[in-house]
Order: sequence, then C-alpha cells, then structure tokens
Amino acid sequence: MHAVTIPEPGGPEALVWAEVPVPEPGEGEVLVEVAASAVNRADTLQRQGFYDPPPGASPYPGLECSGRISAVGPGVSTWAVGDEVCALLGGGGYAEQVAVPTGQLLPVPDGVDLRTAAALPEVTCTIWSNVFMVAHLRPGETLLVHGGASGIGTMAIQLAKAVGATVAVTAGSKEKLERCAELGADVLINYREQDFVEALREGTDGHGADVILDIMGAKYLERNVKALAVNGRLAIIGLQGGLKGELNLGALLAKRAAVTATSLRARPASEKAAIVAAVREHVWPLVSDGRVRPVVDSTVPMSRATDAHRAMEESTHVGKILLTP
Amino acid sequence: MHAVTIPEPGGPEALVWAEVPVPEPGEGEVLVEVAASAVNRADTLQRQGFYDPPPGASPYPGLECSGRISAVGPGVSTWAVGDEVCALLGGGGYAEQVAVPTGQLLPVPDGVDLRTAAALPEVTCTIWSNVFMVAHLRPGETLLVHGGASGIGTMAIQLAKAVGATVAVTAGSKEKLERCAELGADVLINYREQDFVEALREGTDGHGADVILDIMGAKYLERNVKALAVNGRLAIIGLQGGLKGELNLGALLAKRAAVTATSLRARPASEKAAIVAAVREHVWPLVSDGRVRPVVDSTVPMSRATDAHRAMEESTHVGKILLTP
Repeated sequence: MHAVTIPEPGGPEALVWAEVPVPEPGEGEVLVEVAASAVNRADTLQRQGFYDPPPGASPYPGLECSGRISAVGPGVSTWAVGDEVCALLGGGGYAEQVAVPTGQLLPVPDGVDLRTAAALPEVTCTIWSNVFMVAHLRPGETLLVHGGASGIGTMAIQLAKAVGATVAVTAGSKEKLERCAELGADVLINYREQDFVEALREGTDGHGADVILDIMGAKYLERNVKALAVNGRLAIIGLQGGLKGELNLGALLAKRAAVTATSLRARPASEKAAIVAAVREHVWPLVSDGRVRPVVDSTVPMSRATDAHRAMEESTHVGKILLTP
Repeated sequence: MHAVTIPEPGGPEALVWAEVPVPEPGEGEVLVEVAASAVNRADTLQRQGFYDPPPGASPYPGLECSGRISAVGPGVSTWAVGDEVCALLGGGGYAEQVAVPTGQLLPVPDGVDLRTAAALPEVTCTIWSNVFMVAHLRPGETLLVHGGASGIGTMAIQLAKAVGATVAVTAGSKEKLERCAELGADVLINYREQDFVEALREGTDGHGADVILDIMGAKYLERNVKALAVNGRLAIIGLQGGLKGELNLGALLAKRAAVTATSLRARPASEKAAIVAAVREHVWPLVSDGRVRPVVDSTVPMSRATDAHRAMEESTHVGKILLTP
C-alpha cells in the first residue's frame, strides 16, 4: 500500500507518498481501508520532528480517518468486514490502510457521506473531552473559542450552541468571522484589530468566559485568565504561542478558576475509548439529526499532502482539510 | 459584647479586644453565642490589611466558630435557640456573638466537645471542596499536602487516608513530620532538607502526586507541576510564596494536568451552603465514628489574640489554634 512518510523532518515538502507494508490488525483491532483522512495542526508538528508518535502508534501522520473495515483482528466481535466507519487514530491516517483499536471506531453518522466523516473524529473527541468532560460547559454559560474558523473552532461553535451556551470566537479576518456567525457564534472578535479581553467583556455584559478553548498557550495565558469569569475554566489544547508563560495565581484564586492542558493523542487506549463512547452517545445524535455538521474546507489527494500542510500553516482555511488516498 | 477589632492594620499587636454592638441575625440567619473560634492564615492577612472581608460580612476576623444558638432571625425553622453548632463564617468569629446564615451551620459531631468543634468548619470545608469536589481525589490515588502539620494539613491527611488514598506531606521539622505520620501520612518530606519533587518521586515509585494541596503559590508552581502525576490536579488554596509564577504549559499538557486556585471566603452563600452540606454528608460521619479527629494545638483567650497570631506566623504549631471569648 501507499502512505505519506516523513523520511526526514522538515517543511511541507518533507511529506513523501511512498510504498510501505500493509499494517496487521492486532488483538482487538480492525484494518480500515481509508476513504479519507484529515489534517490536524499536530501533523505539522510531527512533520517537523517536534511531536513523535506515542509508543505503539503508526509512524505515519494522520490522527483520524474514515473508510471501510477490510479485515478484523483476533477477539473482534462487534464490528465486521464491510462496515463503514470513522476513527480516532494514534497516527497512520495518511495511508491507504490503517489498523485501529475497536474502542476508537465510530459508525458513520446518518446523513454524512463516507469521505466527509473523516472530518469528525478528532474535532468531536477533542472538544467533547475538553469543553464538556473536563471543563463541564453548561447551558447558559459562555464559551470563548480561539481560532473560531479552524476545524476545532467550527465544530466547537456548533456543539456549544447545541447545548445552549453562548459562543464568542476570535479569528483573523472579517470573512472567517462571518463563517463563524453562520455557524451560530454570538460574539465575533477580530484578534488583529481588537483586544479580545475587552471585546469579550463588552460582548458579554462584563461577564467574561466560563470556559475558554485555547490553542495559543503561553502567548495568551495572561489575557485568557483576565477573560475568565468567576469559576471559569481555561482549557488549553495547543501551544502555538509558546510553552512557558507567567500565571497570575492571585487573579486565578480571586476567580476560583482552573487552567487545564491536555492532548488527545498521548492518552492510553482506555481513555480514548471512554471519550469515543461519550462522543457516540452525546455528539453523534446531534450530527445525525443535522444540528451539527462537519465543516470541510477542501479535499486534497494524499500524494499532494505537502499542499494541504502548506494551506494549514498559512491558516487560510475554514474548517477541515481532507486528504484522500 | 466584645470582639477582636482591627483599628489600624499591622502586626499581631493590631488586634484589640473591644466593646462592639451585638450583631442582628437577618433573614435566614441565627445568632450564635460563641464558645470558640480558631485562627486561620487568612486572618493574619486581614489583620495586615491585605484581605478585606467580602461585602456584607462582619468586619471582625474569624472564619469559623462553635457555640450555642442564642436567637433566630426571620424565616429560620430548622434550627432553634439552644442548639449546639459550629459554623463556617465570612468573618466575625473572634467575638462573643456572631450572626450566621443557616446554610453555614453544622451540628457538633458526636464525640467532639463544643469548644473543639470550632477547629472543624474551615479545614473540613476547604479540604472537601478542593481535594474532593474540585480535584476529585479517588481511592488509591496519591495526595501531596504542603504544610502537613498545619490545621489544614492535619485534617487533609486524615480525610485522604479515610477515603483510601496514599498521603505524602511536607513539613519543616522532624517533630512535625512525626505528628503527620501518627495521623497516617505515608511519605514524609522535610522541605528544609530534601527536594520535595525528588523525595515524592522516590516515595511513590516514580508515580508522583495525583492531587497536590498547595499553600505556597508562585514559589512552588514549577516544582508542583513537576511533582504531578499524569492526569494530576494542583489545587492552590494559599499564596504564601507569591502571586505570579512561570507555568510550563508544555509540561502541564504532557501530563494532561490541571491547576486550580480557590478561596472559600469569597464564595457566595449558595456555594458555601453546598460545600457545608457536602461536608455534613461525607465528613461528619467520619468525625462522629472517630476515624477523623480535630487536631488542636492550643487554646488562647480572644483578649490575647495577639499571641495566637504570633504563634501562627512563627509556624511552631501543629493543628489548630483555638480562641475563646
């Protein structure tokens, strides 16, 4: 089969579509014939050599996919050859075939075509685990999403609105903010032109954010703490703005607030399976009845994964960039 | 009546036992004739002018008391004159009488005398809300308590052991650590002689702390993050080591860890009542059957509150310092 390999870490051109061995599904795993994968920011870090796959994971990039089960390993009884699925992966989605533990499989939701389903696993699992399972966003609360037009952002807006929250977003252009508004965002902040702390305060009658979903890390730490409401929860899932920042514990304590930082990929299989099960229970019905939709920016052949990474790094996209074998 | 007043902020001698008006119990409040109050670190900050009482609270220090109900305000039906109680206070415990919202009252547990019950409300509510309601310490997990011989520390050791956790403590002397061991602490760390991160690692077979109860804030922030286990929760309840510190978000993310900071006093009445109810449900049975005991260092007359504050600031005590009218 073919997969996108990384012979040497580097820029987008480091990605090479090459012949590789077909993986073997192990105990409790299935083999999926990939219909599509999707690009995540973490893939660009892996390509640069900054984010090695966890032990036991495929060496190829790709944290999610959709496709058809082409073989089942020992001990698998609840899934069968021919089932259409999408899956959360520890890696290896940028390939024609990938082995997946059954705990990370999801059925393709009603009304979503097989390829498009590849846009769902990583964003829904990341948002559900962080915004709902860790930060416990509740109806009537306010969520601030940084990068509202990203794959994560476009799904976070829809999920938060579906549970009855108010949603504020930041993005870098008027066009991106318009797309966020179409998806339901209530407070639109252009971070290139506005101070997001001040704009959020104005847009929420002084309340601030009960939950912040952040991808910037150190660069936004001080401002995010300022933007939190009393009892607020800052959920950091990316460190695009650096690793180390000053934390004002006095401000945090005065607000009785929390800072959490997580990644999905490094979690053990049992935790991933628990998250996937929660997503199937809570998110899949919203997708099936059309209240929440995958947002796809574009579809690029895997042999041109270099172009897809370039687009991700230029941040010109809205929603997910799909890759097809 | 008399109360400990603070005519001018300052050192321990700023505390003055003086004649003041008797408070009026408002709607949903009772008046308690105080048998004892207890000294908390926050009282020393209030005395120095760094920690004003929240709006509506008594201007006198004292965050907890025990005593007998001497009058009930309008709308109070579940408590009656003569009931022996202890209470979590927004202030005013250093006095002969204090008005208390009924949501902050607790019965005196079986087997505890009326005065000694004043040692319980603040520590049990602080620990239950932080270690159990926020940080969700579970059986089999490891709790690290900084200042294991303090009022908070001596109770945290007992409560964590009662739920089946392993407990590590730091303290500044061999004598204090021996008292911690008597209360059940498993891993004893003399912070004057040992690096607590290293000592904790050795004492937990490399695991670290699932939950840390911290009073040092900025000074320990970096080391506390290092001491956390994967999925660890750092619960900060004091800032004795400063307000602003560098947070390594990369380390936090790699551990999928959380930093929370809270204070009890500033919470609204509804949150205090929820915490008091949880303490009555979960902690009071442990006290009544003797598995958890209040630890009292000494009892000092309120007219000599200056001496009690001096002892607190010299950190020579083990457990709570009680004050009696």
